[in-house]
Amino acid sequence: MQSVIPVPLPQNAYAIAIAPGSLDHIGSWLTGETLTLKPQSKILVVSNPMIFRAYGQRVIDSLTQAGFQVTSCILPAGECYKTPATVQKIYDAALENRLERSSTMVALGGGVIGDMTGFAASTWLRGINVVQVPTTLLAMVDAAIGGKTGVNHPQGKNLIGAFHQPRLVLIDPQVLKTLPMREFRAGIAEVIKYGIIWDAELFEKMEQAKRLDQLRYVDDELLQEILTRSCQAKAHVVNKDEKESGLREILNYGHTIGHAVESLTGYRVINHGEGVAIGMVAAGQIAVEMGLWDQESCDRQLSLIEKAGLPTRLPDGMDIEAILTTLQSDKKVQSGKVRFVLPTAIGTAITTDQVTSDMIRSVLKQM
Amino acid sequence: MQSVIPVPLPQNAYAIAIAPGSLDHIGSWLTGETLTLKPQSKILVVSNPMIFRAYGQRVIDSLTQAGFQVTSCILPAGECYKTPATVQKIYDAALENRLERSSTMVALGGGVIGDMTGFAASTWLRGINVVQVPTTLLAMVDAAIGGKTGVNHPQGKNLIGAFHQPRLVLIDPQVLKTLPMREFRAGIAEVIKYGIIWDAELFEKMEQAKRLDQLRYVDDELLQEILTRSCQAKAHVVNKDEKESGLREILNYGHTIGHAVESLTGYRVINHGEGVAIGMVAAGQIAVEMGLWDQESCDRQLSLIEKAGLPTRLPDGMDIEAILTTLQSDKKVQSGKVRFVLPTAIGTAITTDQVTSDMIRSVLKQM
Ligand SMILES: NC(=O)c1ccc[n+]([C@@H]2O[C@H](COP(=O)([O-])OP(=O)(O)OC[C@H]3O[C@@H](n4cnc5c(N)ncnc54)[C@H](O)[C@@H]3O)[C@@H](O)[C@H]2O)c1
Ligand SMILES: NC(=O)c1ccc[n+]([C@@H]2O[C@H](COP(=O)([O-])OP(=O)(O)OC[C@H]3O[C@@H](n4cnc5c(N)ncnc54)[C@H](O)[C@@H]3O)[C@@H](O)[C@H]2O)c1
Ligand SMILES: [Zn+2]
Ligand SMILES: [Zn+2]
Repeated sequence: MQSVIPVPLPQNAYAIAIAPGSLDHIGSWLTGETLTLKPQSKILVVSNPMIFRAYGQRVIDSLTQAGFQVTSCILPAGECYKTPATVQKIYDAALENRLERSSTMVALGGGVIGDMTGFAASTWLRGINVVQVPTTLLAMVDAAIGGKTGVNHPQGKNLIGAFHQPRLVLIDPQVLKTLPMREFRAGIAEVIKYGIIWDAELFEKMEQAKRLDQLRYVDDELLQEILTRSCQAKAHVVNKDEKESGLREILNYGHTIGHAVESLTGYRVINHGEGVAIGMVAAGQIAVEMGLWDQESCDRQLSLIEKAGLPTRLPDGMDIEAILTTLQSDKKVQSGKVRFVLPTAIGTAITTDQVTSDMIRSVLKQM
Repeated sequence: MQSVIPVPLPQNAYAIAIAPGSLDHIGSWLTGETLTLKPQSKILVVSNPMIFRAYGQRVIDSLTQAGFQVTSCILPAGECYKTPATVQKIYDAALENRLERSSTMVALGGGVIGDMTGFAASTWLRGINVVQVPTTLLAMVDAAIGGKTGVNHPQGKNLIGAFHQPRLVLIDPQVLKTLPMREFRAGIAEVIKYGIIWDAELFEKMEQAKRLDQLRYVDDELLQEILTRSCQAKAHVVNKDEKESGLREILNYGHTIGHAVESLTGYRVINHGEGVAIGMVAAGQIAVEMGLWDQESCDRQLSLIEKAGLPTRLPDGMDIEAILTTLQSDKKVQSGKVRFVLPTAIGTAITTDQVTSDMIRSVLKQM
């Protein structure tokens, strides 16, 4: 059971491979048909202490066996370290190990490691290879695909970054076994998003699953299907809109209100996936009130989000006016109008700036 | 008297305009035919204290009059400040002034300001507009063109960077009047380089000039010709080889030995242009000894370099073996072979890795 999804970008074609157990064969993936890296070239594996302890040696062994000159760079874990200062540590390792134009960085970790490694690779010697080996569900279905890389500014997320496509995204679903439950659910929120905006069949397959709230209840086949279809959805959208002008915007479904809720709770009480879940419930209901979506589909979305163990209501004591103010200050707001992604059917969404504050207020009050 | 050189890159076409007095009309250039920026959009002018004092207000007035929302960011002067830490100050200004995707950074200065501003623009929100307004001869004919941006790592120049094409390069030759003589000559070294590797007519026009060692002896017409032909040469080469694989290499003529001499003298005794001058003399002689070039052309090159007030011999006490060792450690060295650009005629050059250490040694000993 293995899927390879081509991402045929005109300048930077690459593949996403979803292959159980592939961590032990990364060396062959990098020298095989999918991607031919220069034999004996240098590879810098970038990871964090926890992930490296669990999986680092297997990756290094396989790469070394394939003939690469491998070194590693271990960064502190956590979103708060996704900064220019941490990227500087990657540069230092690149210098120490004399990485050249033909060298490769391998990002072994979640979105934090992936974003920083991608950014370092895009700016070291004005751009060297990066291979993404995502280890969280969120990174597998979202962060590792699309070429967005970057770090945070003390006053705003992802303000500093670059577009830099990976040479390969290698996904080993087995690493998800060690992923904390809450991180798993955060990833599932994005998968549900793809079901709503792009892939009705993916949505239905998840509806048919008995449980979805923990990885151990998801059988290998469904997991493979979830990963493959999600990656296909993101790759499709990114492919059609590499530098983010139009279509790519639908990937923000659930994220408008989601981000606001996340940030108002200090990114702790409500994490990203939970914010997206709440945001999808809100956006779905707004779509219904605006006559764009039917209540039945909206209820099906609600049930699926609940089944995934994700929140469907605002956290207690949430100030609705604060959410509205936060929406207005979002960096994506153009001339004062908040843009929303709204579903029109399971599997299809549109974008609009016609959602009024009163509409948002009234829907949030019911939540 | 005004030239506009189109740089028709498939994805990022832009123009280089060489127009005396254009500093006072930058507002119209940004809203005119050559480049249509969003009216009322935000512009951040990045400069250093000296240049900003001399020219900043004129730029700001013209931009403001054209309807832009203009702010500025003044960085410390000098190569030693071309660092990630200084770029961070541009990010801070970008944040404070809430630059958006549609905003523009204007680099008003030499190559140091140009490289940092270009890099900040390429990474702010994953890429916003940059307009280069070069104020040194070197930046006009070299640094501002081609899309290379970047900063230094404590242990190596330009190790961190990105390719990011400007939306416009606006050259006002009149600002050269305040440029120190030594900086002017450094720029002329690059111009002579273009004459040798690309444009025999440019070379001959400079030969015909009475003096070339100071700007005040160069008449406006020749200056316009020098700027136009140099920009054309660089634009041509860059155009054919945007991401630096083959052809672009010829731009390194004189730079192989030049860099070594520069770095061995701590970048002070011998500056970049002087290093390039010495490097061209050496490379020219190597080409002659290898039977690739005629002695007469080589002598003409020597005379022109002398006329420009540039050095043609190694500084006193220079250790030739140290130069050879430095060549070997250059980041561009592939598998131990130093690559040289050698002229085969005035106006044409080739690249080769067939130059032996003995050959380099014997030529340097005569210098
Ligand atoms: N580039 C993009 O397009 C994009 C898209 C979405 C999100 N992101 C970014 O991704 C980041 C979030 O990514 P994330 O959710 O993966 O967070 P993360 O990288 O912080 O990982 C979450 C936690 O899980 C741990 N972990 C990772 N893999 C594990 C495994 N297999 N077993 C056990 N623990 C494991 C990590 O150490 C970390 O503590 C954010 O910075 C966000 O901005 C980027
Ligand atoms: N991006 C590229 O392709 C490229 C190519 C070549 C060089 N470079 C970079 O360019 C830098 C060198 O550029 P540079 O030679 O312009 O040096 P610079 O920017 O340091 O300028 C040299 C000096 O001249 C002063 N100055 C600038 N304009 C002036 C004016 N009109 N009047 C009076 N003084 C003025 C500056 O303040 C500075 O002190 C290096 O960092 C080099 O790496 C980049
Ligand atoms: Zn998300
Ligand atoms: Zn140069």
